[in-house]
Amino acid sequence: MKSVALFGAGFIGTVHGRNLAADPRVSLSYIYDADASRAASLAAELGAETADSVEQVLGDPAVDAVVIASSTNTHADLLTASARAGKAIFCEKPIDLSLEVAERAVAAVERTDAPVMVDFCRRFDPPYAALRKAVADGEIGEVELMQMSSRGPSLPPISYLEVSGGQMFDQLIHFFDLMCWITGLEPVSVTVTGSALVDPQVAEVGDVDTSVAVLKLGNGAICQIDAQRRIGYGYDERIEVNGSTSMVEAGRQRTGWVNHYEAGSVRTDGMHPGWFERSEHTFKASIGAFIDAIEAGRAPSPNLADGLRAQRIANAATTSLREGRTVAID
Amino acid sequence: MKSVALFGAGFIGTVHGRNLAADPRVSLSYIYDADASRAASLAAELGAETADSVEQVLGDPAVDAVVIASSTNTHADLLTASARAGKAIFCEKPIDLSLEVAERAVAAVERTDAPVMVDFCRRFDPPYAALRKAVADGEIGEVELMQMSSRGPSLPPISYLEVSGGQMFDQLIHFFDLMCWITGLEPVSVTVTGSALVDPQVAEVGDVDTSVAVLKLGNGAICQIDAQRRIGYGYDERIEVNGSTSMVEAGRQRTGWVNHYEAGSVRTDGMHPGWFERSEHTFKASIGAFIDAIEAGRAPSPNLADGLRAQRIANAATTSLREGRTVAID
Amino acid sequence: MKSVALFGAGFIGTVHGRNLAADPRVSLSYIYDADASRAASLAAELGAETADSVEQVLGDPAVDAVVIASSTNTHADLLTASARAGKAIFCEKPIDLSLEVAERAVAAVERTDAPVMVDFCRRFDPPYAALRKAVADGEIGEVELMQMSSRGPSLPPISYLEVSGGQMFDQLIHFFDLMCWITGLEPVSVTVTGSALVDPQVAEVGDVDTSVAVLKLGNGAICQIDAQRRIGYGYDERIEVNGSTSMVEAGRQRTGWVNHYEAGSVRTDGMHPGWFERSEHTFKASIGAFIDAIEAGRAPSPNLADGLRAQRIANAATTSLREGRTVAID
Amino acid sequence: MKSVALFGAGFIGTVHGRNLAADPRVSLSYIYDADASRAASLAAELGAETADSVEQVLGDPAVDAVVIASSTNTHADLLTASARAGKAIFCEKPIDLSLEVAERAVAAVERTDAPVMVDFCRRFDPPYAALRKAVADGEIGEVELMQMSSRGPSLPPISYLEVSGGQMFDQLIHFFDLMCWITGLEPVSVTVTGSALVDPQVAEVGDVDTSVAVLKLGNGAICQIDAQRRIGYGYDERIEVNGSTSMVEAGRQRTGWVNHYEAGSVRTDGMHPGWFERSEHTFKASIGAFIDAIEAGRAPSPNLADGLRAQRIANAATTSLREGRTVAID
Repeated sequence: MKSVALFGAGFIGTVHGRNLAADPRVSLSYIYDADASRAASLAAELGAETADSVEQVLGDPAVDAVVIASSTNTHADLLTASARAGKAIFCEKPIDLSLEVAERAVAAVERTDAPVMVDFCRRFDPPYAALRKAVADGEIGEVELMQMSSRGPSLPPISYLEVSGGQMFDQLIHFFDLMCWITGLEPVSVTVTGSALVDPQVAEVGDVDTSVAVLKLGNGAICQIDAQRRIGYGYDERIEVNGSTSMVEAGRQRTGWVNHYEAGSVRTDGMHPGWFERSEHTFKASIGAFIDAIEAGRAPSPNLADGLRAQRIANAATTSLREGRTVAID
Repeated sequence: MKSVALFGAGFIGTVHGRNLAADPRVSLSYIYDADASRAASLAAELGAETADSVEQVLGDPAVDAVVIASSTNTHADLLTASARAGKAIFCEKPIDLSLEVAERAVAAVERTDAPVMVDFCRRFDPPYAALRKAVADGEIGEVELMQMSSRGPSLPPISYLEVSGGQMFDQLIHFFDLMCWITGLEPVSVTVTGSALVDPQVAEVGDVDTSVAVLKLGNGAICQIDAQRRIGYGYDERIEVNGSTSMVEAGRQRTGWVNHYEAGSVRTDGMHPGWFERSEHTFKASIGAFIDAIEAGRAPSPNLADGLRAQRIANAATTSLREGRTVAID
Repeated sequence: MKSVALFGAGFIGTVHGRNLAADPRVSLSYIYDADASRAASLAAELGAETADSVEQVLGDPAVDAVVIASSTNTHADLLTASARAGKAIFCEKPIDLSLEVAERAVAAVERTDAPVMVDFCRRFDPPYAALRKAVADGEIGEVELMQMSSRGPSLPPISYLEVSGGQMFDQLIHFFDLMCWITGLEPVSVTVTGSALVDPQVAEVGDVDTSVAVLKLGNGAICQIDAQRRIGYGYDERIEVNGSTSMVEAGRQRTGWVNHYEAGSVRTDGMHPGWFERSEHTFKASIGAFIDAIEAGRAPSPNLADGLRAQRIANAATTSLREGRTVAID
Repeated sequence: MKSVALFGAGFIGTVHGRNLAADPRVSLSYIYDADASRAASLAAELGAETADSVEQVLGDPAVDAVVIASSTNTHADLLTASARAGKAIFCEKPIDLSLEVAERAVAAVERTDAPVMVDFCRRFDPPYAALRKAVADGEIGEVELMQMSSRGPSLPPISYLEVSGGQMFDQLIHFFDLMCWITGLEPVSVTVTGSALVDPQVAEVGDVDTSVAVLKLGNGAICQIDAQRRIGYGYDERIEVNGSTSMVEAGRQRTGWVNHYEAGSVRTDGMHPGWFERSEHTFKASIGAFIDAIEAGRAPSPNLADGLRAQRIANAATTSLREGRTVAID
């Protein structure tokens, strides 16, 4: 039985809190949120205690692990402090919007031996794991082309976009990680083309809502990622990996199994309404893998190095978008 | 170059005539139809001559082969006369509505050495041929269950139903043939359940428009065939053959390749509007195989024995439907 | 909070026990099984108590409801005794293999006011509920043809078949219920064709492993059900309902979303390995609906009348199979 | 009846020749090829005459139209000469590998009133026409993202690549045309990332075999095109057009309709083996539309302006690929 505390009781914190509460291997001890009433409400639902401060949580030797699901600007400090307090850590991505801050935090954590997992939950989607296995098993030969689509149903509030780090950071970071994880390859350069089509305010805050990132990988393979903030037909996320001998695809996921045969057309179920309905199971699997690892005394994966790599790619992609040129990735 | 004459210039005669005219190995000589103006019109379109009588056609030694596409009640006599005149024969199914008449005609033909092909054109549908191959190659193990659907978009005129021989004869005869051809098995009994749901007049003329025939095959396998005269979503024809180790299916055929992703649903193209759009290519392939056979001096297939077998099954099925009991098939 | 006791700690009892234990509205009180060690093991897993006898359970006024998941031959007595003890009852199908015994038990229960739900869990499969809604909403017009397939991956042990009541009773009873529930129609007759193809011992115990049941419904519509005990490609369960204006289908369910594009073929995931993987979610939904009903003081559905109706159809189907004739259903 | 002459009796010339010969509205008069024996062989097959020279063809007043299917470096001169001779012209793409030469030829043709059609045959693929119609009808709202895939089964000979103009010119030119035609939008810039992965000789002749072109359209929409010369799974060509309200897709085309349900997987037919099997019908439709236009006295479409536009895009794309930067398109 691991005692786990939760920082952050917002949307994602609530998701993690519920998954932790339902895991028989976990005792959800404290919930802390800067908004005390939000913490109290979630704690009541899940039968946990609220903490008055971060210090209370980190100072309690009974706490084995912490889950960092608070706002992005608190991640780096919480990571550092939790690692120094000897806690195992499950941290939401990104580490920080500033790569420099993120790198400093990672360096500080590395001086401890705290096990840290970064929540790239899509790695726990069975179809994506199947793609990775097909590549690793040599089923498709050498990777030569990869196509990813990440298309959401609605533009987030402009106020959110202003603090999100931009579409590369906020939406594509998961796919930068998947690209490396599935192919086992590192990118050497990125070129991004983007537009603000949905709302002129998107451009005013320096962001885009529709973009295509093209990455060249170390072996010369090319990965293209199209990203849209608002499409009309729900949520659409697909990946193709095309190798020298065959292709594997994590295709459209159906949400039902009923087909309507009508005069002139056959109608099937539509897409998931949003990213959460599509990905909900991956959150449970991701935090479950963290508990697996700390129970077994294994280093969890994905780790901070994975987190930094994805941020470096997102940084380069953002530079490419702003400066209209191909940017090398070290 | 084979000189081929055509009996019958109605719908099916026109289909055969056009396919013959487009075949560079064929010279379409005469067209004969009891309705002389219909013959003249098709002959003009296809650059053929009209014949004044059957005798003129059969008496012309330049004619190598005849295609019998006239009304069903003329088939038996034309078969016999054409065989006696030494012509190769391509004959529309059925041989005759009366099994006795059909058997007499076949016996008469067998006393000649005229090569005869019966137009079970669906054997020339590539998916059905693939099913047969999968069975013959042992891909699915022993055949254990077969499912066929034959569903048309609209009820034929009642006047047609009155002379059609009924749903077993008119619609299912193709599928009785396919059942034997694909599985390589013969039926031992048939049980039919039917209803007249579309129009009360269907019952008044002693027919049904919706039926399910269940046949037991020689090895104990079971074949079910559902037949509908009028469905609301176009034309639907599908076959599954389920064996002891795996299953093969000739599934829904799409008519286009465009998918519309909309809020709440994904819409694709509908079914073919009717049996002819679905099966048009099989008519060309079927008559082409007849020309192949007579050019090569091979016996064409399917032959009169296949035609008689399908009629015997249709006869037993009709008896089952009328008498409400399982009927053995010799 | 409802206190619920469980009779039966076998496969299905374990499924129900786990679902009850995970339901925050339920306190799982006793577990009773004729095999005390089996009961003890499940009770330990789920944090429940074992009962020494049925009487102990029924005599405890704190127990609100019982779940009957013991062997079929105990259902009728447990139903009667539990109803007389004033408990709400969730009962596995069938009520009894003997229709007479089942009818007597139902009559006895009806003299109490105990709420009883019969576990036709497939009604809680979302695609099947969608078919029912499409019919009820008039989306497909009048029901005219229905096609159901129920195909399992492996023959149960012959010892099981001997006490199962036969394929009509053991496998098709769910589909008889679905047929009525989805269409809102009652059958008037049934005709069954069956074979023992998998193992000669199936025939020796008077059963079949491959069968097709054809039912005529009150409006003249025809329903065909094919049932196989052992197919080579996993578990396959599908339903089509074809109406006068359109068709709805609960089609093949995929188990993954990965497509492999290879030279000459495209390969996708296969079927579920067995009925439980395909239907697991319906057990949770079914018992959840029972708890919903007793919490709300509503009569649960499906009820004993539904259970009896399905058994009457299964009885008639068994007679048809044995006597080789169409059997009327009152 | 139009008298049509054919320049070029190679692969594409043969395709056009056969389609012309089968068109009842066309009399195929001359066939000319620099390789006289090739011309003679095709002329014999199709019942046409050979010409000794281009001049002989253009000097014959009976010739209404010419089809230019000779090698690319002859297109510009044949276009100019044929136009001056007053012939209607059907010309294979591209007009010339040099944009300057092409522009000069087009200017010369424009000084005549010869009707000219450029063979962008994919416009005659029904799914692509359906995409265009969906956009034009406003079905998908504003175009925001377009995805095209063009993937072939095998690398052409290096000797061909050397004279092909490169992957942008040789393979993508069709898709540049489709992009404009389907969306009704013009591109403002293009950015290409490419690699030579299949064979090092591809790089040695200054070409790539795997590339992604990203184009920004006039309204800010983004179009991505992935192109591969050699994939392992046949020929794959697909298009998605994603608009502000919904998405339409011309998806994978099946080559058969047979599904194999096996233990652990469902296997379906594979892709077309090559571009010609996938596109054969479009050649017939394209040249048929040319005959339609000249019979009706209408200007044919696509025309030389379409041809020049696609070349300008291909030119800019080639520059982008060579210089590693985004290139503006006037």
